[in-house]
Amino acid sequence: MQLLTVDTLDIASQKIFSYLQKETLLIEEKLLLDSQHCVLAQDIYAPFAVPHFKRSTVDGYAICHKDSTGVTESLPSFLKIIGKVEMGQENTFSIKSGECVYVPTGGMLPQGADSMIMLEYTEKLTEDELAIYQNVAYNAGVVNIGEDMEEKSLVLKKGTRLRPHEIGVLAALGITSVLVYAKPIVAIISLGDEILAPEQELTMGKVYDINSYGLYAQAKKFGFDVLSITRVCDDRNQIKNTIIKLMQLADIVVLSGGSSQGEKDFTASLLGELASSGVLTHGIAIKPGKPTITAYDEFSKTLLLGLPGHPVAAMLLFELLAQNVYNQLMDCKEENCIVAKMANNFPSADGKLTCQLVDLIIQNKEYIATPIFSKSGLISSLAKAQGYILVDMNTEGIKKDEQVLVHIL
Amino acid sequence: MQLLTVDTLDIASQKIFSYLQKETLLIEEKLLLDSQHCVLAQDIYAPFAVPHFKRSTVDGYAICHKDSTGVTESLPSFLKIIGKVEMGQENTFSIKSGECVYVPTGGMLPQGADSMIMLEYTEKLTEDELAIYQNVAYNAGVVNIGEDMEEKSLVLKKGTRLRPHEIGVLAALGITSVLVYAKPIVAIISLGDEILAPEQELTMGKVYDINSYGLYAQAKKFGFDVLSITRVCDDRNQIKNTIIKLMQLADIVVLSGGSSQGEKDFTASLLGELASSGVLTHGIAIKPGKPTITAYDEFSKTLLLGLPGHPVAAMLLFELLAQNVYNQLMDCKEENCIVAKMANNFPSADGKLTCQLVDLIIQNKEYIATPIFSKSGLISSLAKAQGYILVDMNTEGIKKDEQVLVHIL
Repeated sequence: MQLLTVDTLDIASQKIFSYLQKETLLIEEKLLLDSQHCVLAQDIYAPFAVPHFKRSTVDGYAICHKDSTGVTESLPSFLKIIGKVEMGQENTFSIKSGECVYVPTGGMLPQGADSMIMLEYTEKLTEDELAIYQNVAYNAGVVNIGEDMEEKSLVLKKGTRLRPHEIGVLAALGITSVLVYAKPIVAIISLGDEILAPEQELTMGKVYDINSYGLYAQAKKFGFDVLSITRVCDDRNQIKNTIIKLMQLADIVVLSGGSSQGEKDFTASLLGELASSGVLTHGIAIKPGKPTITAYDEFSKTLLLGLPGHPVAAMLLFELLAQNVYNQLMDCKEENCIVAKMANNFPSADGKLTCQLVDLIIQNKEYIATPIFSKSGLISSLAKAQGYILVDMNTEGIKKDEQVLVHIL
Repeated sequence: MQLLTVDTLDIASQKIFSYLQKETLLIEEKLLLDSQHCVLAQDIYAPFAVPHFKRSTVDGYAICHKDSTGVTESLPSFLKIIGKVEMGQENTFSIKSGECVYVPTGGMLPQGADSMIMLEYTEKLTEDELAIYQNVAYNAGVVNIGEDMEEKSLVLKKGTRLRPHEIGVLAALGITSVLVYAKPIVAIISLGDEILAPEQELTMGKVYDINSYGLYAQAKKFGFDVLSITRVCDDRNQIKNTIIKLMQLADIVVLSGGSSQGEKDFTASLLGELASSGVLTHGIAIKPGKPTITAYDEFSKTLLLGLPGHPVAAMLLFELLAQNVYNQLMDCKEENCIVAKMANNFPSADGKLTCQLVDLIIQNKEYIATPIFSKSGLISSLAKAQGYILVDMNTEGIKKDEQVLVHIL
């Protein structure tokens, strides 16, 4: 039995980056409403100042703040009301000392005014006379031109994954479409004579196809599009033809199963044959997930990933390779991590990065991470896990109560 | 000016729950592939044991473990190979002491075998003679029937939001469709004479519509469907007709703007007129977001929310009210929180819950939360924020270095 020469996860990723480069990424224009969760492929500069007029943040009267100097509840000052601003209208008034204009929240201040006094600190004595009962500071209740976003300032960076809040900011700038990275297109192949489609009857020795469903859902979560799901039995020719066809159509072809060294494990030899790079990595120093294969084909521009058949390992490696590689290519630094305290000691493994599923509970404003110990291959551990920790190889492991970074699933 | 009698956020939610009840939720059947992020409306029991046959977790030989007692590298034992199991095939062999059968990872163990010995601790001497070099324990390398999931055991609870991992578990059970809560349907109305559609030219006194876009994206993120976005100027009749029409079609009608007490703030009087409950809450003891209105109409079964026009407040309240209320109705306990250390002292507000946007950085395996201090109304603070903290009213506030729960945006 030939021993695998394993790569670390970092080296496996670097080998992919030596082929799959930023230039490979497609860019497309998306309507703002459809852009959620997409990654910006352009820097966004403010096309105009926000606000583009002096804006009130309160309901009240625009005044010259000096007119309120020394004013108290028992020592009011009196101003002449020269008008009222309507929402959404240009303010054509101009005030001087001793005058004021009514402005609603969000309304435009008149020329000459530098502050707002809130309605509750005023009293309208007659149609054109106002008593004010508070000393207000310069610029109180006012957002100045460009105070929120200066004209031409950088508002959002390339690589930002768009959340509702960024979409709100883009809307404020009147931007209705943005350049984003096109979603990578994934084709999923599930290998194995033992794999049953869910509509088939369960018979002895066979199991239902988990990976197609798990990887499909993950791909969607990562912001990928899924081209197809294909189940193929352990027939070298059929697998080969399936890969050839899908390489032409997808950016990523993911195979699960067939990645080890058994007599029916054809993935390594097929990727070696079909990808221009040959096999880049066969075996990653990670537990679980060692029998993982990577390759890249320059002609069809396809990343090929041979993942283990074991669902837990397949899903973890899909995240650690495909998601991380694409996030890095897109300059997207998002991390979905929390810090937690370990409930137990946890050993590191010699020569292997350990990826350990954990459950999380919160206690006294602190998250506690409890490793889910289960026999290799237990699928139910997937649904129990809230996240995973990565334990470096050749370290002392993690001690009880130590802080760890938990990657949320 | 009439002072608002404010409710706490909890009381505002409770008032909604006194009308909007679990029975109002619709349930629908979804294909597993389309069920991601949906909330299960049924408990899922395993229809059969997983695995449903004794399964090997290694490549090797199925043996009676007693045959390996005392065996070492220098003191092998010898077994008779009586066959080879093919993947996905029913194993019809039966072994007794002194015999073994080859079984690949995931393959079915023969009758009589209780353990697996890994290939690397064996040597095939002839076609039917195997030397074994290791003492293996009872059940080593074996997953027993039902060890992963017992037949009829509860696998996933009602209220679970389906992630890729749960979808994998459901696939393992051959389940291709599930009962989930139908996505609540939201209609969004953005009010204000100052609000411009993004395709309109920016003029003095007007601003682009932020809330339609921000609330749309949030609704999608919360797992809601959006029926429509409507911009209406401050015309009571037009607003009324819009609400009446949308109440018939949507589960939630969200209005932003017009929720305060100005002369053009029609939301409260209209909701009072149109919703069978009348106004439930007008004013929540929260900062920002005080001018928030809730109502419920029993005839059309619509939750009506009048949110502030201020985008930061509107988006926070939409999350705190609509998302939290629906998650609770669906028994969905997901929380997207992390624990962080405060970078500064932060005061509480008298009589108000403070919802403060924070930025997050990670330092020495610890998250540091820095409040984003900005003038009320600054939109750019939205994109800078990673999350928010809730600071209880009438407390001492939060001290520098104190642990806080940050809700991730």
